[in-house]
Amino acid sequence: MKKSLKLLVIGGVAAGTKAASKARRDDPDMEITIITEEEYISYAGCGLAYYIGGVVEKRESLFARSPEVFREKQQISILFRKRAEWINTFDQTVKVADITTGEAVFMPYDRLLIATGAYPVIPKIDGIDLKGISPLHSITDADVIRTLVDSGRVKRASIIGGGFIGIEMAENLVRRGIDVTLIEAADSLMNRQYDTDISALIREHIESKGVHIQTGAVVEKCIGDERGSVRAVIAGGKEYPCELVIVAAGVKPNVRLAREARIAIGSTGAIKVDSRMETSVRGIFAAGDCAETINIVNKKPFWMSLGSTANKQGRVAGANAAGGKKEFSGVLGSSILKVFDKTAGCTGLTERAAIESGLYPVSATVTAHTLPSYYPGSKNITLKLVADRGSGKLIGAQSFGDDKVDKLIDIVATSLTGKIPISELINLDLSYSPPYAQAIGTVLVAAELLEKKMETYR
Amino acid sequence: MKKSLKLLVIGGVAAGTKAASKARRDDPDMEITIITEEEYISYAGCGLAYYIGGVVEKRESLFARSPEVFREKQQISILFRKRAEWINTFDQTVKVADITTGEAVFMPYDRLLIATGAYPVIPKIDGIDLKGISPLHSITDADVIRTLVDSGRVKRASIIGGGFIGIEMAENLVRRGIDVTLIEAADSLMNRQYDTDISALIREHIESKGVHIQTGAVVEKCIGDERGSVRAVIAGGKEYPCELVIVAAGVKPNVRLAREARIAIGSTGAIKVDSRMETSVRGIFAAGDCAETINIVNKKPFWMSLGSTANKQGRVAGANAAGGKKEFSGVLGSSILKVFDKTAGCTGLTERAAIESGLYPVSATVTAHTLPSYYPGSKNITLKLVADRGSGKLIGAQSFGDDKVDKLIDIVATSLTGKIPISELINLDLSYSPPYAQAIGTVLVAAELLEKKMETYR
Repeated sequence: MKKSLKLLVIGGVAAGTKAASKARRDDPDMEITIITEEEYISYAGCGLAYYIGGVVEKRESLFARSPEVFREKQQISILFRKRAEWINTFDQTVKVADITTGEAVFMPYDRLLIATGAYPVIPKIDGIDLKGISPLHSITDADVIRTLVDSGRVKRASIIGGGFIGIEMAENLVRRGIDVTLIEAADSLMNRQYDTDISALIREHIESKGVHIQTGAVVEKCIGDERGSVRAVIAGGKEYPCELVIVAAGVKPNVRLAREARIAIGSTGAIKVDSRMETSVRGIFAAGDCAETINIVNKKPFWMSLGSTANKQGRVAGANAAGGKKEFSGVLGSSILKVFDKTAGCTGLTERAAIESGLYPVSATVTAHTLPSYYPGSKNITLKLVADRGSGKLIGAQSFGDDKVDKLIDIVATSLTGKIPISELINLDLSYSPPYAQAIGTVLVAAELLEKKMETYR
Repeated sequence: MKKSLKLLVIGGVAAGTKAASKARRDDPDMEITIITEEEYISYAGCGLAYYIGGVVEKRESLFARSPEVFREKQQISILFRKRAEWINTFDQTVKVADITTGEAVFMPYDRLLIATGAYPVIPKIDGIDLKGISPLHSITDADVIRTLVDSGRVKRASIIGGGFIGIEMAENLVRRGIDVTLIEAADSLMNRQYDTDISALIREHIESKGVHIQTGAVVEKCIGDERGSVRAVIAGGKEYPCELVIVAAGVKPNVRLAREARIAIGSTGAIKVDSRMETSVRGIFAAGDCAETINIVNKKPFWMSLGSTANKQGRVAGANAAGGKKEFSGVLGSSILKVFDKTAGCTGLTERAAIESGLYPVSATVTAHTLPSYYPGSKNITLKLVADRGSGKLIGAQSFGDDKVDKLIDIVATSLTGKIPISELINLDLSYSPPYAQAIGTVLVAAELLEKKMETYR
């Protein structure tokens, strides 16, 4: 009789639970255990801001699958409030400590999956430990923030960081009637995802909703009141009174365990994996926010914290931990962000990222109607395509508009994956009917302009 | 001094006007003349049904560009109500007759562009010439139908044909409070675009809106009243009383002129062109509904009447008529159709078309939520992916649902163009955020199921 293998999964949010479920589907006999420091598993990290804003009404709807389902339907054990402290790659054991009691045991594994995620960067400044200051990373963070907002005591909030979480929280706090100030250290919002021209459109729209934006300002300290609650932040020499501070200054991959076990860490600071999501140590896989990947466009190591990537990597890692041969070939950095009633989306490289990669970007930007002008409901959309003069290839896109941004970005993302030449992109056979698109859609119009610009460089 | 070339364009709707405009942009000196039998040019053929339904309120909004703009801004002459009767490819002249007076002149050309479009198929049955019976092809047709509907005399309408126009008209006549019967000779609606499983979903939804659908029924005759107006149609032996009949039994390419000039006609019955949209006679181009193209998936000659294709082909033909070297590499047959408050879309080959092409189709169908279940506004969507067992490649998709059908179809259309392997499609980096998509979107879920099915054939 074949002895069933032991799979240990460290981390229980997106990649960890996805991997465990996939491994179970592919191998009904494996002994699968998930270890998590938290009290919750399988929750919708990407939905937390919307829960605070009240868009998502019920807290329980944030949980994709209950621990009971994992246990009873999938025979996956879950150990809550346990910290994986040390991986012994020689003995193939993990030292696991109970967070409450401190008691530790050594758990053996045949396959190990590291899905330790990322942690929010907390600036080391005076007053950062005051009450009313929180990142938005876990369910517990969301509970703290929502309770404070529900109490009605928060009239003004400061958000440190103008990235995904910062902008989502700005929208959701405005929805709750709070006066919001967004403080960003860089000169523009979302500066890793958008060039300054598109970023300016995003900023303008957020400001039109009454949010105060301060770019190029570093938060220097937080000031508390007599009860130890925050009453203001100081940034760029100015004081911003507030009863709530959201720390949204980015996240970093959680790689302590892997590093201490001498598992290779990549140049991005995340765990190095091959296309099968296996680390430098055989039988140990990594997936999700703690793992590095490849940017499909420039083939360079890439790291970005995204729920979609975590889920897909988890699926591949889980299949391979169960003996499969699945591959994950990389990402494009595609992302989309609701900006109040408009949308920003991007994929591939920005002009800035292209220059940093040693490429010579050319771009074409068009603003168009989503539908024929005669059809009701036509909206505006701006699309910027970026190509590389050297190779003549499309390398990225950024979009901002009222509608259809997700469609346009996904078309470009698919084009980048399929390496469709710009000359073919111009005639892409996309679905057309007046209620859905223009006869020659925005991607095609932008591609034609891009080709014309490229011709001047020949 | 270089003598400026004469470009004659026969046809003034989508492909003709697009080609003329493009030729003008690329060659400011060309003498460009558009000849049209109609009284109108550059109108939105795809918007006519919505004008009748009142969705498009103003008739004038259907005209993309006025004759004055063509004349004054672009120096393009337009001859209305003129019929091109004969092309003399040796002399390079076209005999052009005035429709009112019958007077004819011979117009010389250096480059000729045939954009004669398609004509609606009118069944040769008794009573087809009665008042109240019309196709929906031109502005004049739309005027006739709208006037009749506006008069309030139409309580019941019969639609002959369950394709694009038939279904669009069903929706728009129901919107006008008319009791509609849709009569289709084949066993299912939209049977060239959809396999019977997806077609059944479309039918069910149309019926839920109160439309009576009769498939497998050929219209035998139309019966008039004493004033010569239609009062019923007889189909499949049954009588359907009605005051309006829409003939939507398909269209055919208008190739008489080309055929008589010995320009090669392809196997589809449309004018054969090369990738530059040039016909078998040098200097004569064809574009739009009268021209044949290639199906990118099976590389076979293909013909379909679509506004998006007409516009793109017009652009390529116009550029080349002006001396350019643009290419049009073919189509996928992508289309999208509003079905009341739902949407049907498709691209590539159906299972049926695949079998007819000598392929061995395998399909995977999933019904999924468009958004994470916790986010408000999540809708249902069904996606069927079709692959070929022989090559292991994706060859088509069909979708029906409440939302995002255009996005999914465009993603698959782009995948087909980029020849993305199914194993890569599974991990496509599409844009994800709860308000727009699931972490692992419907295309990816369907692709995974498809891969699993394909594995059983290895």
